Parts: sequence; C-alpha cells; structure tokens
Amino acid sequence: MTLWVRFIHGEGVAACGTLESGRVRRHAGEWGAEPQPTDEVLPLASLTLLPPCTPSKIIALWNNFEALRVKLGKAVPAHPLYLIKAASCVAGPGEEIRRPASYAGKIAFEGELGIVIGRRCKDVSVGEAASYIGGYTCVNDVTAAEVLNENGDFAQWCRAKSYDGFGCLGPAIASQLEYAGERVVTRVDGVERQNYPLADMIFPPEELVSRISHDMTLLPGDVIACGTSLGVGSIRDGASVEITIGGIGSLTNTLAPAARQLPQGQASAA
Amino acid sequence: MTLWVRFIHGEGVAACGTLESGRVRRHAGEWGAEPQPTDEVLPLASLTLLPPCTPSKIIALWNNFEALRVKLGKAVPAHPLYLIKAASCVAGPGEEIRRPASYAGKIAFEGELGIVIGRRCKDVSVGEAASYIGGYTCVNDVTAAEVLNENGDFAQWCRAKSYDGFGCLGPAIASQLEYAGERVVTRVDGVERQNYPLADMIFPPEELVSRISHDMTLLPGDVIACGTSLGVGSIRDGASVEITIGGIGSLTNTLAPAARQLPQGQASAA
Repeated sequence: MTLWVRFIHGEGVAACGTLESGRVRRHAGEWGAEPQPTDEVLPLASLTLLPPCTPSKIIALWNNFEALRVKLGKAVPAHPLYLIKAASCVAGPGEEIRRPASYAGKIAFEGELGIVIGRRCKDVSVGEAASYIGGYTCVNDVTAAEVLNENGDFAQWCRAKSYDGFGCLGPAIASQLEYAGERVVTRVDGVERQNYPLADMIFPPEELVSRISHDMTLLPGDVIACGTSLGVGSIRDGASVEITIGGIGSLTNTLAPAARQLPQGQASAA
Repeated sequence: MTLWVRFIHGEGVAACGTLESGRVRRHAGEWGAEPQPTDEVLPLASLTLLPPCTPSKIIALWNNFEALRVKLGKAVPAHPLYLIKAASCVAGPGEEIRRPASYAGKIAFEGELGIVIGRRCKDVSVGEAASYIGGYTCVNDVTAAEVLNENGDFAQWCRAKSYDGFGCLGPAIASQLEYAGERVVTRVDGVERQNYPLADMIFPPEELVSRISHDMTLLPGDVIACGTSLGVGSIRDGASVEITIGGIGSLTNTLAPAARQLPQGQASAA
C-alpha cells in the first residue's frame, strides 16, 4: 500500500509524493496521471501538506450507516442518497476552517471515509469498480447545522455543507485499504466523539462507485464521502477536530472564529 | 455588448472567440482570463460550438420567480435557495441529452437565465457584484423528475439534476444584458411552453452573486442558474428543446433515447 500526499515545499508549486517513514519522495506529474518518482526525498516536517486531491465534485452520502439509520428510524435506501458539496469548500490537513461571517449557529463535524476516484469512470459494474478507486482518505464533512433546515420548503444541504473550508480532506490517499476491518475515530480537542466500524456501511465503496457511475461520470480526484454514523456533534470556535482511520492517518482541522462582521443588508442565517 | 462562444474548428483544440455577424473571431487564451483577439475569422457554420464556459460548479436556484412561487403557494425565501449540479453534467449547444439507461421516467425541461462568473468572487456587496459577472447565457436545467422524490426521507435534487448532459449551456455568453427587459422563451419541438419575464426574479443576478459569494468562493466560469418560472413540462424521447433569451440567442438540445439496457443487478430509478 502507498500513501500519497500533495504538498508545497518552500516557495515552490504544488507537487505530489509518497510517504516513506517520515519523509516524502517527490514525484513528477499529477496524482491520478501516473506520476513518476524522482530522486528528491524531503522531510515531512519541512512541507506544507495540501488536500491530497483536487476534486471536480464531492459527493456526500446521507443515511449510509446501519447504526445511524436505525437510531434515526429511517428506511434502508434503495439507492445511495447524496448531495454535492462545492469543490471550492476543500481544505487540507491542518488548514483552518473559518466560521462564515454570516453565520453564528451550530457547526457540526462528521468524520467519514472518502473514496478518491483514480480514473474516469462511467457505468461500471460492482466487480469493475475497485479498479477505478484510486484510494481512500479521511473526510470531515463540516455542516452549518442551522442553515440546513432554516427554510421549511427546501432542505439546504448544498449550502449548509459548501462554505469555504467545510470539506476537509487528508492527510493522505491510501492506495489500498481493507476498509471492512477499519474504524472511523473522531476526536474533538482530544476527546473521542465518534468510533464506528466501516463494516457497517449500507452501500460499501465498490457499490457506491458502481451505482453513482450510472448516474454521472466520475473523474480522477473526485471524492465520494461515504456518510457518517453515530456521534456527530458540534464544534465550538477554537476547537480542533481530528479524524483518524487506520491505514490512512489522522486529519486535523481547527474551527477559527469569523474573520469579520456581517455587512449591512446581508441576511443572517443564525 | 460582446457575444462569446467556445468552439472546436476542424481537428483543433477548444478555443474561444467573439461572434461578429455570422462569423467568429478566434481569441488567444481562455474566456475569463483576458483572451486577446487574433486575425483569424471563421464562418460560424464551420465550427462545432462547445459549452461557452467550463464551470467548476453550477448553482441552481429553486423558488426564485414570483409567478411560480405564488402558483406553488410557497413563502418568499429569506435567502436564495439552491442546489449544486455536478460540473460533469454540462452539455453544449446542439449536443444530445442522453436519457440515462437506468431511468425510464419523466424528464423535465426548465428554461433559465444563467449568470457566468467572470472573476474570483468572495464576500462582495450587491453594488460590487456586477463587476464580477462575466456575462449571461441560456440554461436548460434538465431534471429526472421521478428521481427527485423517489425516497421519502431525502429529496434527491443533486442526483435528479446531475446526469451527464442535464446541464445545457449556451449558445454564447452575452457580456452584458439588460435582463430586466428580457424574457425566457422555451419551445419543445417548436411549440412554446414557457414565456416569462426576467423582471419577475425574487433575487436578481447582482443579489444572487452577492449573497452566494458570502456562502462560498465563486470562480471564473461558474454558473448560477437563476431558477425557472411557469410552464415547466416533460420532454419525450426524440424531442428538441429550445431556450431563447433576447440578447443571448437560442440554445437547442434534443433528448435521445437510452443507449443501452440496464445491467443486471443495478436498481432502476423508474
């Protein structure tokens, strides 16, 4: 198994590389387009990690874990239920999540497994799907909880989950993962809040990729966030959220307070 | 006012240009990045038009026209209500919309005005918004109507509107548009089905850009589809839908039947 990262070194441009015991071997070319190893090996601590991929879309599942489905009293879905998060919401490892200036309400964390698409994918079978999966990463699917239901006629899933910084990805892409044996652990300021098994997924990754590829073309770097399970909660300003999945690593992001006040004339969501 | 198109000429690569009485002046560089005019002028009829922009996201409004709001008995929204269509759903002028193999149900047209973002845009005021609008185009916001409500727990807006080809854009980007005096006219096989005034928008373009820019960063080429009004209906296989907006032109796309049968083991949405 290979762990892929994207990074900036010094004042350089973004590059990708593989993690090798605390060091990163720089590769030439883009992740997803057969990058080739170079002789350059850099200490991990000298790098600024970026989101490990640059998705054209983030597909985020709802009601995809059996334990949470039972708790919420929902029916087993016949097809994956999902929304789309704007690609502009992506944040990398260690990057601050900034509270939107327009929103004073509850901001929720959701620790999730992310599937990263490895190559262009349309109408693939469940059996073929694994060969289109480039790897797996950790996702914090951040949500402005009170925006979601502020309008009684229309659930604002896309808006509530697309604020800049609300799609935390990283720290690495694990090229393979025996996900059925792994768990998602979410800690807020070091206190465990989620710890659930990936074996509990209603639609596992190969099934998600196959079925969603029958809805739309998936492109290299696209992310399918597999949904969350029990233990979702809120993040107070200043708190840090760490999502850990065995075989991938830990993704940590801190919620920073809003940078400035709401301009006059802008409606508040709070 | 300038009309911008994107096109392929012969076996060449995609380029952008300006329409000048039935001919296109090729420009060097990308639309949205200050392309420069060249000496090359091509007959429009010799070109294959592409979608006029390549959005990183398509934000599609719901309940943004007063006449339709009143008909549906909905409240006036306090903030624009929107979903996100996958960028992979974009189709250009004349391109076939292909019925998804997995879906035998009703496919609806929605003729709409599309705002095309001209430059990176975050937290802009209503007064500043016009300078971030690169222009306007026609949108057919195609929808698999029976997918939308097939699950009682979760409205599948993103899935129903993101099938490949379900985001028709074009034929051109009008750099300026006195939209308040224009109407959206939708014809199916030549029969008028929608004819509504853009002056009836609840949140007009400058207000949409300002408010949505407070939710997320908007990037050059991103499209905000302003929502539709009265007259939405279904498209039978083989029918062509033409969306016309004065000052922009006419966007025509035909719904082709499904290419092939549903593979065994894939659930049908129909």
